[in-house]
Amino acid sequence: MRIAVDVMGGDHGCGSVIDGVKLALDANAKISEILLVGKQEEIKSALTKSQCHDARVKIVHASEFLEMDDKPVEAIKRKKDSSILRAVELVRDGKADAIISQGNTGGIVAASHIRLRPLPGVERPAIAVIMPRVKGEWVLLDGGANPETTAVQLTQSAVMGSVYYKLMLGNPSPRVGLLSNGAEGIKGNDLTRTALALCKKLDLNFIGYVEGSDVFSGNVEVVLADGFVGNIVLKTIGGMGKAIQEILKSELMANPVRQIGAFVAQRGLRGLKKRMNPDAYGGAQVLGLNGNVIKVHGSAKAVVVANAVRQTATAFSTNLNKLITSEMAKANEILVERKEAKPVRA
Amino acid sequence: MRIAVDVMGGDHGCGSVIDGVKLALDANAKISEILLVGKQEEIKSALTKSQCHDARVKIVHASEFLEMDDKPVEAIKRKKDSSILRAVELVRDGKADAIISQGNTGGIVAASHIRLRPLPGVERPAIAVIMPRVKGEWVLLDGGANPETTAVQLTQSAVMGSVYYKLMLGNPSPRVGLLSNGAEGIKGNDLTRTALALCKKLDLNFIGYVEGSDVFSGNVEVVLADGFVGNIVLKTIGGMGKAIQEILKSELMANPVRQIGAFVAQRGLRGLKKRMNPDAYGGAQVLGLNGNVIKVHGSAKAVVVANAVRQTATAFSTNLNKLITSEMAKANEILVERKEAKPVRA
Repeated sequence: MRIAVDVMGGDHGCGSVIDGVKLALDANAKISEILLVGKQEEIKSALTKSQCHDARVKIVHASEFLEMDDKPVEAIKRKKDSSILRAVELVRDGKADAIISQGNTGGIVAASHIRLRPLPGVERPAIAVIMPRVKGEWVLLDGGANPETTAVQLTQSAVMGSVYYKLMLGNPSPRVGLLSNGAEGIKGNDLTRTALALCKKLDLNFIGYVEGSDVFSGNVEVVLADGFVGNIVLKTIGGMGKAIQEILKSELMANPVRQIGAFVAQRGLRGLKKRMNPDAYGGAQVLGLNGNVIKVHGSAKAVVVANAVRQTATAFSTNLNKLITSEMAKANEILVERKEAKPVRA
Repeated sequence: MRIAVDVMGGDHGCGSVIDGVKLALDANAKISEILLVGKQEEIKSALTKSQCHDARVKIVHASEFLEMDDKPVEAIKRKKDSSILRAVELVRDGKADAIISQGNTGGIVAASHIRLRPLPGVERPAIAVIMPRVKGEWVLLDGGANPETTAVQLTQSAVMGSVYYKLMLGNPSPRVGLLSNGAEGIKGNDLTRTALALCKKLDLNFIGYVEGSDVFSGNVEVVLADGFVGNIVLKTIGGMGKAIQEILKSELMANPVRQIGAFVAQRGLRGLKKRMNPDAYGGAQVLGLNGNVIKVHGSAKAVVVANAVRQTATAFSTNLNKLITSEMAKANEILVERKEAKPVRA
């Protein structure tokens, strides 16, 4: 497996990405090549610093990169030699099998959408994010690729999310639920009510509407939302996780007695942090494209990059995209029928 | 102050509501009357059980109540003698100043909307919920009263939320932000982009779009979302809070060493629970109606009901509705101008 790693655009330069690549190469013999895409000088210096001399590493120079505040589509047109475009082109041209990037999310989605094109039958890519819960995991999609979606696209996300959960997390029949403001079918909005009817038609373990309170409770494995709602939910969860860590720390450091207690119970407290950390699964995966595309967050440490490499390897070895394509073909037969019978918001 | 308390429809009968009323009466001399609305026999028996013999308590019999799975508008038409309708009618008829209920949320909103009518200039009521963060509080609205909202209604929520924060939490100039999938104005959807432009026109401390990660970080005090998104966000936060408590407990009880540490640090751990508990503020307040209406969640314990009474007293004594009415009149002058200049989604 050959992975193109866009090393530019992270919060702390390319050092932690390259440290992560080194960890991944040491752990995974199946990787035949890692193509580091970005400014050659910076990459060389980071390779030396991290003492990474693996022969499987190659550098692909790109003179530009997308800043976090670049407008994706516009920046991609303007920065022809940007690292994300070069990385995506390596996959398009058959020189790599997957892309990992910690750059601008919109840029990653736009570049890979434009250069790789969606898989046959897929209207729009969706971002899938694996999240922890008390026992096991749940997957949310769309995490923000498609904020103004249609009911058909939302329904296609159900297909992609179900396949993704099956292959990545080994559950043969994950429950799929549509995020709404109540469990009853009369709830929701025009978009969700149309998608609810469409999802029921498909050959999925679809359980209907789920509420925000269900996602952590173990009632549902694949949670569907449009990219606007999904992005808000993911970022709220991230913000709440940070706030709780901060409050817990301030409470436990407030006086010497609590400090002693926290010291004695430290493995338990670390256990909480570990179990609530979505970085353990790698990054956010852009589903529905001709290629495996993973976004790692901008402040990701080396171990997160290494986890993303492992995640990519699983997607690649399980033929994720092949199964998405075949399941989407089946689903589209039903969705097209339905489309003709009653037009949905397009 | 006279408060109508709908005691029906909670998860555990009316006992905990009546215990809460007793706590509130003992603590608050300004309450002149509490009208307990519901099945007379059940109320009498609960009053005896909780040894509540306060002369300020009166019973108003209602033979029916809304079940949690009743469809609000339909059930209100059918159940003319329901406790929520009777409670709302006490306010309408000038016999009470405020309503507290732990029944069906949709039923509370529908009954109070129909019987009390919105305040002058307010198109639709919105549910405001006070939430804790690392330091201080933030308020989210709409929590679910109006899931299919318009940009003007969302903008009116900004006015109501800002007034609410000022009076209830004593901040003279709370920052108001519109929840979106990114901070830049090009993000969001049709609804949020139109509301963004409208909110900027108003005399508010409006800071534009905020993201899910901002709500707990102390960057914004009043967070706006339509009732669909707001409800999902609130329930996700609630579900995550429960999951974290459960994981923390299992980690800290996993072996005797951790148990000892947790015992020594117990005040710190309780501090976390206390600081993340939104029940400390009372209930969810339905803003924009001719009357003070508070929904307490179905499993609320006595202390939450007592907090809701205190919350109602603050809303009443600060003339919340009077200030909402005057601020809305000012805002509507601008919103109407804008409406004429460029039609918004209605």
